[in-house]
Amino acid sequence: MRLELLCTGDELLDGSVPDTNGPWFMEQLAPLGLRPMAVTLVGDRREEIARAVREAAGRSDVLLVSGGLGPTLDDLTAEVAADVAGVPLEEHGPTWASIQARFAERGLALSPNNRKQALVPAGAAVYENPAGTAPCFVLRLGRCTCFFVAGVPREYQALVHAVVLPALRARLQADDARVFRAARVLKTVLLPESHLDARIRPLVSQHPHVRFGTRTRAPENHLKLLAEGASQAEADARLAAVERDCRTLLGEWLFGTDDDRYEAVLVSSLRAARRTVAVAESCTGGRVAAQLTSVPGASDVFAGGAVAYTEAAKQRFAGVPAELMARAGVVSPEVASALASGIRDACGADFGLGVTGFAGPGGGTAEQPVGTVFLAVAAPGGQVSVRRVHLPGDRERVQRLATAHALELLRHAVAGERL
Amino acid sequence: MRLELLCTGDELLDGSVPDTNGPWFMEQLAPLGLRPMAVTLVGDRREEIARAVREAAGRSDVLLVSGGLGPTLDDLTAEVAADVAGVPLEEHGPTWASIQARFAERGLALSPNNRKQALVPAGAAVYENPAGTAPCFVLRLGRCTCFFVAGVPREYQALVHAVVLPALRARLQADDARVFRAARVLKTVLLPESHLDARIRPLVSQHPHVRFGTRTRAPENHLKLLAEGASQAEADARLAAVERDCRTLLGEWLFGTDDDRYEAVLVSSLRAARRTVAVAESCTGGRVAAQLTSVPGASDVFAGGAVAYTEAAKQRFAGVPAELMARAGVVSPEVASALASGIRDACGADFGLGVTGFAGPGGGTAEQPVGTVFLAVAAPGGQVSVRRVHLPGDRERVQRLATAHALELLRHAVAGERL
Repeated sequence: MRLELLCTGDELLDGSVPDTNGPWFMEQLAPLGLRPMAVTLVGDRREEIARAVREAAGRSDVLLVSGGLGPTLDDLTAEVAADVAGVPLEEHGPTWASIQARFAERGLALSPNNRKQALVPAGAAVYENPAGTAPCFVLRLGRCTCFFVAGVPREYQALVHAVVLPALRARLQADDARVFRAARVLKTVLLPESHLDARIRPLVSQHPHVRFGTRTRAPENHLKLLAEGASQAEADARLAAVERDCRTLLGEWLFGTDDDRYEAVLVSSLRAARRTVAVAESCTGGRVAAQLTSVPGASDVFAGGAVAYTEAAKQRFAGVPAELMARAGVVSPEVASALASGIRDACGADFGLGVTGFAGPGGGTAEQPVGTVFLAVAAPGGQVSVRRVHLPGDRERVQRLATAHALELLRHAVAGERL
Repeated sequence: MRLELLCTGDELLDGSVPDTNGPWFMEQLAPLGLRPMAVTLVGDRREEIARAVREAAGRSDVLLVSGGLGPTLDDLTAEVAADVAGVPLEEHGPTWASIQARFAERGLALSPNNRKQALVPAGAAVYENPAGTAPCFVLRLGRCTCFFVAGVPREYQALVHAVVLPALRARLQADDARVFRAARVLKTVLLPESHLDARIRPLVSQHPHVRFGTRTRAPENHLKLLAEGASQAEADARLAAVERDCRTLLGEWLFGTDDDRYEAVLVSSLRAARRTVAVAESCTGGRVAAQLTSVPGASDVFAGGAVAYTEAAKQRFAGVPAELMARAGVVSPEVASALASGIRDACGADFGLGVTGFAGPGGGTAEQPVGTVFLAVAAPGGQVSVRRVHLPGDRERVQRLATAHALELLRHAVAGERL
């Protein structure tokens, strides 16, 4: 099946907003074993949209067109679709009724433009938009099935789920009734993509009915698995087998699957262990606390945090002795330890995390250049583990990676305690 | 001038990474008064790249092709370009010498593949890549000038700056020697796009030689101004005039221009005023501190921060009396004030910022639903100002907007003190 995307809108071409619908849709396609052959972006210009629709429909089996279905003058897609199909626009009664109902419900006045949104090419199949007023319509152009959906991401996503993906699934079944699929994403953090690839490579030949792919969301790398079988049970069994092997090879690099969010997994594991954590951070400047507290319900496990840039703040908030900082240096394993233990005590938490380092671009010494970071975790029994890392990149990257390392230290400490 | 982009790479079509080169390039084009008519993404497939190059070159004056110039088997772009042009590939001596030098410098062994990168279509103009090994080449296809550049963003950006933009500027001058341009971006924060638009609208008819545009980078909205004139002096004067008018209408919503980063502007204004700040945050969970400390040199002005989720942490870190929390409630103007004053005293800072609120999805009361946030700033003289806001959206959005409001309160307090 040859599939293409066409995304319309001036805002995609003048640098106002990047296209996020395309990448999102590709992620939804992966479990079906599909990906687009081409993606085209054009502005709100009648002749450009017409040309792009005509060309893509001429060479593809399925075309997904998005945007340009709103009520304003520069929303041209329905008109262009009718022109290319050689049919008139006509009002779709149920859509007009639903637009009127929507406005009445909200107490808004209808403008003449709003009625324009109920016009669709004659002969098109029309589907209601659960998230907005622009209807979705499906038109056959030559041998190509063309889906027209709204470009607002919320509406786009609702319509892809309600109309486009079910149609693609049905078509795949019809095209090849004997292929069933099962998909999983395995998520790692701080494991470089090349290492992930090297670890998994031996499995590729052992699982001939599975497609392997990777996806980078720094500092995470994700392994995408797509198993095929002659029945759903066979596809599921193949997926389970390859997932088991991958889990063995990835070990504790693996933190979650599919829709799992790293920080939510960590907060859940603390909650499950009935443990709390407090954080004292220097060079990460609040990022460790911010990532933990981005999770709903983080207050169950987060006992408090200190952003201790200065020596005075380290002393006041985490009780780090001035004498220790003078003797060992502020960026040292001793001070990372003292931050972890001190903040744990200060907040009455089970775990304490301490971070100190040189994020750059200034600072650093010959022995401890910019990018040197010490991370410490104080465990419920009081014992402290310290790690030293040297991180590459600019300030933003050092801060981001140091935050990931600090949270990993905590995740492993929580997991270790539960063994 | 009709300009198109063609971005190649399987990773752009399987959801691995979104295309960031296209949106970046569009931002560089804006000051020239240009934008692409279409953007096409295709995978690493010979026939798809060839079709896309042929079609785009057939209808455009300028085509920028990126990606597929690396040393591996799926890097096909140079071959395809030669095919489409009907010329052989030939080795470009200076490029091969520079690849050898680059590897020698780093002590890396050359593989036979590396020599492939020195092959370019016969007759192409070749430019050295300052940031990598893939050369940039320029080929004439019919009436279209085609630039071929590497897809790695660092290399792409270097080559666009070194080769593509200068060529476009020269061509614009040749095409229309009488039009000169001057551009500026004015940056606001927390001003909704519709309000920005309404404020500026009266100026549009008063400045007929200026193009107005907006760009959203939530919580910021940017106003893009592009002035044209028959000389550079005239374009500059028109830009200065419209900028003056915009500044009057935008007032203190405006925080910076062009490449200014919000938090860097704020840190600079604190440094200029020789003032420091300390932060005590509850519902923003470390984001205020993290945003301030993302700026290089933030240690000059950042005296410390506390993430005080619990009552105990508010008391310990910022000295908020338990009695006050019991009486006024933890989410209250009184507690926001006490956090601001308390953290200012604890860290010996000039300014103190306090944030308390309900980020959701849990929490909140009938009078203070989720999204209610109190923000306070304690000034050097000790006086405290408090603001109450009600923020829409989910937890992530409430935290992001509350952080922006807290920083704005500080920015205005620093500015007010300097008047």
